[in-house]
Amino acid sequence: MSLQNQVYPVIWQDDRVLLIDQTRLPSEYALVDIHRCEDMAQAIKTMIVRGAPAIGVAAAYGMYLGAREIETHDRDRFLTQLEDVAKTLRATRPTAVNLFWAIERMLKTARQTLGSVDYLKQALLKAAKAINAEDIQTCQAIGDHGLSALPSAPEKLRLLTHCNAGALATAGYGTALGVVRSTWQADRLERVYADETRPRLQGAKLTAWECVQEGIPVTVITDNMAAHCMQQGMIDAVVVGADRIAANGDTANKIGTYSVALIAKAHNIPFFVAAPLSTIDFEIRDGSQIPIEERDPAEIYQVGETILCPPGIDYYNPAFDVTPADLIAAIVTEHGAFSPSQLHGELYSRKIV
Amino acid sequence: MSLQNQVYPVIWQDDRVLLIDQTRLPSEYALVDIHRCEDMAQAIKTMIVRGAPAIGVAAAYGMYLGAREIETHDRDRFLTQLEDVAKTLRATRPTAVNLFWAIERMLKTARQTLGSVDYLKQALLKAAKAINAEDIQTCQAIGDHGLSALPSAPEKLRLLTHCNAGALATAGYGTALGVVRSTWQADRLERVYADETRPRLQGAKLTAWECVQEGIPVTVITDNMAAHCMQQGMIDAVVVGADRIAANGDTANKIGTYSVALIAKAHNIPFFVAAPLSTIDFEIRDGSQIPIEERDPAEIYQVGETILCPPGIDYYNPAFDVTPADLIAAIVTEHGAFSPSQLHGELYSRKIV
Repeated sequence: MSLQNQVYPVIWQDDRVLLIDQTRLPSEYALVDIHRCEDMAQAIKTMIVRGAPAIGVAAAYGMYLGAREIETHDRDRFLTQLEDVAKTLRATRPTAVNLFWAIERMLKTARQTLGSVDYLKQALLKAAKAINAEDIQTCQAIGDHGLSALPSAPEKLRLLTHCNAGALATAGYGTALGVVRSTWQADRLERVYADETRPRLQGAKLTAWECVQEGIPVTVITDNMAAHCMQQGMIDAVVVGADRIAANGDTANKIGTYSVALIAKAHNIPFFVAAPLSTIDFEIRDGSQIPIEERDPAEIYQVGETILCPPGIDYYNPAFDVTPADLIAAIVTEHGAFSPSQLHGELYSRKIV
Repeated sequence: MSLQNQVYPVIWQDDRVLLIDQTRLPSEYALVDIHRCEDMAQAIKTMIVRGAPAIGVAAAYGMYLGAREIETHDRDRFLTQLEDVAKTLRATRPTAVNLFWAIERMLKTARQTLGSVDYLKQALLKAAKAINAEDIQTCQAIGDHGLSALPSAPEKLRLLTHCNAGALATAGYGTALGVVRSTWQADRLERVYADETRPRLQGAKLTAWECVQEGIPVTVITDNMAAHCMQQGMIDAVVVGADRIAANGDTANKIGTYSVALIAKAHNIPFFVAAPLSTIDFEIRDGSQIPIEERDPAEIYQVGETILCPPGIDYYNPAFDVTPADLIAAIVTEHGAFSPSQLHGELYSRKIV
């Protein structure tokens, strides 16, 4: 596998950040140069970079870019001005949890590092790089545990995925697509089937694009074709990501995930959820407590410049759905694959949470 | 219910045919005037009129339009020239069964009618009108039998449909949408949910448009939202059309139908197929014998002018899928609603087939 073709949405290179402009994919691949904190804030706001873990990494570098612009050599003044940098970055996307987590970790690094302001700045760059590297490691661990959890036969697997839980949404490698990548690298992947994932088409656009970059054979289907493909014996396992997992294993993910889980069950095809531990919300007992966000109906009735529907009709556009734990074969984390019912106990008994 | 807002894709008026130009829906409603057989052939070829029953009706009127252009008063010469008219119309769409059936019936009418050529021409117009009226009656009977077969509670039903088995695909009223119409007219319809039906979006475009014309409340969702809607208790029954039904009740219909049937079963929501008797193919034992047509991948990767996917990927674009009989609560025909297992026996014992 050539590293050159691997997808990293946030890259530190020659003293600045390069971002893949995800708003232009897949029709155009363009890198955006980010030298200043203000530009990073703008890039997060306009979704040049998207996906919660990827945003966290971008914000961490943004904190360093802001820090190096601060001219004072006085440590206290520096820390005060760094708070302003944090404020700018926090104001970009109000709901991305990883954003706030990364900014907080960078602030803590600055506060807890002794030495000159120059030394603090270097510590911040190091911390941003660490956040970046850790996220990739987490994804790689998820990928490898996922590979172990997949069926042992047939030798070459046909995997179905939904939406884009890929490198583009993380620091690299991806969660569900991390499992796909590990399977590919182990020479156990025949092909990945990508649901196009209406309404926003992340499967057709982003998952397809990621696979092409690394030469992974990918077939795009419309969401409603997955059941027919399973009936025809074309799918060996399903792997999806997660936006939030309740303590009992109920999983909120992109709309359509529940549908895939139901039809997989009907065909006795194992259904896997791949997500970092940070996605599991042990405060929430089950999926009924996860609120489902409704989005702009234009996502349904408009594609590009084309209006699909007549005026005078109603729309319903839930962004997520909840897959009950009993449809999930295993939840694959960086600490291993767990059956949903064992999730809580296993992680506690191993003192992981 | 005002008749004025009802949708008839083929209308005989003032000595010519008016066709709804279905290639322009839903963004534009336009009627096309057809005075000559040649123009009707062109309209069928370019899909201004589509849907097998609707094409049959259009071809029947096309036969009359061709007949009235014939100048001879000699009966034999007239019949010979009418064969040429038939040939022109047959060459429009090679696979639509109703097209050949309607042309053959018109030819038989001419051959079996005694009297002057002028009298024959009048008999042909009468026959075309009869084919038109019979198809509407068949659809209305399907609608009424469907209404009787639907759950008795709740009083106001939320029905889900897939694709467009509507007035636009028939002479009027529709099959699955015939059931929706009968439910609406009986004041038992709360709302119809229309799957957008990727890749060709017949639900978003045609079903939504039909409902708006008659003031039927309609909510368009993407195909992958149906399971979530069922989980939320938003759907009471599913009604779809059929392209071909095997003797055991296995049903081929637009891609995605099988998916809807599976998820309906998982939620104990009854799933109905609405289709005329002519759709049942007693020569075919089960669904495995129904060939599945694959269509142009451009239907998946392009919407309007927008290219959705990157180059270098594969596609799979089956146009239909097969729903096994055991997922179907009843098959609703113009002769009544039958459970799939009783279909063959019931129709034979009643001497219907």
